[in-house]
Amino acid sequence: MPLRNTLLAALALLAPASTDVGVGCPAELARYCEEIARLREDAAVRRALAHVEAADAEALRDLITLTAIPAPPFGEEARARKYAAMLREAGADSVWIDEVGNVIALRRGRTGGRVLAVSGHLDTVFPEGTDVTVRERGDTLFAPGIVDDGRGLVAVLHILRALEAAGIETESDVLFIGTVGEEGLGDLRGVKHLFREGGPRIDAFISIDGSGRDRIVHQALGSRRYRVTFKGPGGHSWGAFGIANPTHALGRAIAIFDREADAFTREGARTSYNVGRIGGGTSVNAIPFEAWMEVDMRSESQERLMQIDSIFREAVRKALEEQNQLHRRGPGLEVDVQLVGDRPSGETAPDATLLLRALAVSRSFSDEPTLSRSSTDANIPIALGIPAITIGGGGEGGDAHSPDEWYRNEGAVEGLQRALLIVIAEAGIAGGV
Amino acid sequence: MPLRNTLLAALALLAPASTDVGVGCPAELARYCEEIARLREDAAVRRALAHVEAADAEALRDLITLTAIPAPPFGEEARARKYAAMLREAGADSVWIDEVGNVIALRRGRTGGRVLAVSGHLDTVFPEGTDVTVRERGDTLFAPGIVDDGRGLVAVLHILRALEAAGIETESDVLFIGTVGEEGLGDLRGVKHLFREGGPRIDAFISIDGSGRDRIVHQALGSRRYRVTFKGPGGHSWGAFGIANPTHALGRAIAIFDREADAFTREGARTSYNVGRIGGGTSVNAIPFEAWMEVDMRSESQERLMQIDSIFREAVRKALEEQNQLHRRGPGLEVDVQLVGDRPSGETAPDATLLLRALAVSRSFSDEPTLSRSSTDANIPIALGIPAITIGGGGEGGDAHSPDEWYRNEGAVEGLQRALLIVIAEAGIAGGV
Repeated sequence: MPLRNTLLAALALLAPASTDVGVGCPAELARYCEEIARLREDAAVRRALAHVEAADAEALRDLITLTAIPAPPFGEEARARKYAAMLREAGADSVWIDEVGNVIALRRGRTGGRVLAVSGHLDTVFPEGTDVTVRERGDTLFAPGIVDDGRGLVAVLHILRALEAAGIETESDVLFIGTVGEEGLGDLRGVKHLFREGGPRIDAFISIDGSGRDRIVHQALGSRRYRVTFKGPGGHSWGAFGIANPTHALGRAIAIFDREADAFTREGARTSYNVGRIGGGTSVNAIPFEAWMEVDMRSESQERLMQIDSIFREAVRKALEEQNQLHRRGPGLEVDVQLVGDRPSGETAPDATLLLRALAVSRSFSDEPTLSRSSTDANIPIALGIPAITIGGGGEGGDAHSPDEWYRNEGAVEGLQRALLIVIAEAGIAGGV
Repeated sequence: MPLRNTLLAALALLAPASTDVGVGCPAELARYCEEIARLREDAAVRRALAHVEAADAEALRDLITLTAIPAPPFGEEARARKYAAMLREAGADSVWIDEVGNVIALRRGRTGGRVLAVSGHLDTVFPEGTDVTVRERGDTLFAPGIVDDGRGLVAVLHILRALEAAGIETESDVLFIGTVGEEGLGDLRGVKHLFREGGPRIDAFISIDGSGRDRIVHQALGSRRYRVTFKGPGGHSWGAFGIANPTHALGRAIAIFDREADAFTREGARTSYNVGRIGGGTSVNAIPFEAWMEVDMRSESQERLMQIDSIFREAVRKALEEQNQLHRRGPGLEVDVQLVGDRPSGETAPDATLLLRALAVSRSFSDEPTLSRSSTDANIPIALGIPAITIGGGGEGGDAHSPDEWYRNEGAVEGLQRALLIVIAEAGIAGGV
């Protein structure tokens, strides 16, 4: 994901941080850097941070346990049951699995008016039948989904464990969540259900997705995805010539879309489009009975996303009309336009306390935070105007979405402590520190 | 194949046939109907026709033998060896397999100046590994390739056997041939080699393809086929947006081609075009590294076939140019344009003696001959101006190119006798009858 460091750049222009507010803390963050410094001196918080370190080996075992339970798209049940059991055993006040399969654990705060959610995703991109055994080579673990989002699930679980171990009472209620359907055609269905009308109250949302400890995703990259299929009677290329031809209609749809969308994306908020897959036809000498394409459109701006979406649907409509005017016999084509992905755009406000706290916590670990835009579970609350960020769960990893996905426990403790401290700061210590 | 019965219609307008020239023989064919009537009275010819009847069961056994030897595209060797042995055993003067795999058997005539070729094709459309065992259900035999062109090969073989059994000496030399590569991507490679510059002399060509006894293909349906692949670097739909996109170029090529070709094919000699198969891309959110199409163009007219071919290649060129002007970074696309099919158009002249004899022979069996246009081995000699026709080998069959292809021996004798009589008439009885 390309980075959009405008906020960071703005902060960097400010005067060098005073020693009062911690090394490298810009004046704009002063209040939050001070808050984090006070938290770090609190005895209970120190116990919680120490517990993360003490439980590091246990976290690695939990990672191996969860990763080895297959969680293919639309098949997260087994992992969900195990994760619910682990959250229950970790001391949540109540744990349930909701209608779509999300695991939700509630830890009550003192006042309970506000609710913070911290969430990983249960699903992987790997289809049923993929070997998800964890293989160890030196200090590196290999397994599909071990980082994305095995590490996130473990971080969420161990934040709960650390709060319990340290006996920290928070002001707000905290929900510890494992969502379904974050990846691909899952289309954020778990988090969409969570934020449905009439769903549980959530005032701020932290998604822990993958490894690392410097990245803060505060902007949602929205996308719309379609699968479009033109359908006709099909027939022999010579004998049936003149019947409506689905590949010809598809070609026209792509050509019209490319022409209009190219012009549209040359100015304004960054917007992309891509006909990613095409197919159709059985033989060179048969008029196909169907031709299809899969299309991905993305934009930093929700308004422009919906504009390019209209351009696309209009191109499909026009191509259908053109082909159905051209054909010389038989029935016209039909077109099936299926929306297979819908992720809204948006941004958490640059002055949202959740974001400023995340920046201040990161700096308290001497890390230069990286602000970025991505497509994660946070897209949904962000689009609803609810403060939300996505961060890493600590450790190192790579080759996500590939069978060679790997994880190393390097920097795991600090990354998890960072996430824990953001949660504590946002949920508040009961009675204050 | 659609029928083009203009010649037949013209003949039908003539006065009712006189009894002198046989029942149903139009005056234009009188000379040939008389010739066939004389031939049918010749003792040797009657022996030959009787042999076909006597050898009917043997022909069925030969059909089962040949069909059960796999002859996938570009893998005709085993069947070719067996067929060469059968032609040798049937009494040909010499038999050889040429450079590309065609089986050729020479039976010398008295004068030997003229050469008639009678040919079936060895190859089937079925890939290696297809079960070609012949299954019997009632009076019907089922096997891939049993009709197309098992029956043709048997007919060619049994014409030779009948000539030998009857002791008929012809004026012309006769070549008995099994060609390779008639089907699909074989692209008539066997018959193309046969009619290469410096190839064997052939003055007239009879292809026996499939079953039946009324069809006479005297017009060659020409076709040009391409596989076109646009290639680019590929990349992430958001991260790499702006690089050249192969599916977008392909869409443009199809749209430009469809627009121009639609206008072109609305008048003039019948011409068709079809984008029969398309493909490309690995994921909706990845810019493909390649996108391809397979295209079939056909025309009754060789000139118009080459014109629509130019329209197609120009559309591909223009689409490449447009996409390479649009793209914002990275290298441009490349395009690979591969000609995968090239079959010329043309027609055997309506007054060619070969055609008139075939019509007269058919009428002597009280069959209404059906004149048609198709794409067969005869395309090549027809395009070279050498009289050529394609006929059926007798019997009934259907579902060619499907695993359920079937054959019934109904009308097998008459169909084979028709083919034999056309060969005898065209090759001439030595010394005349």
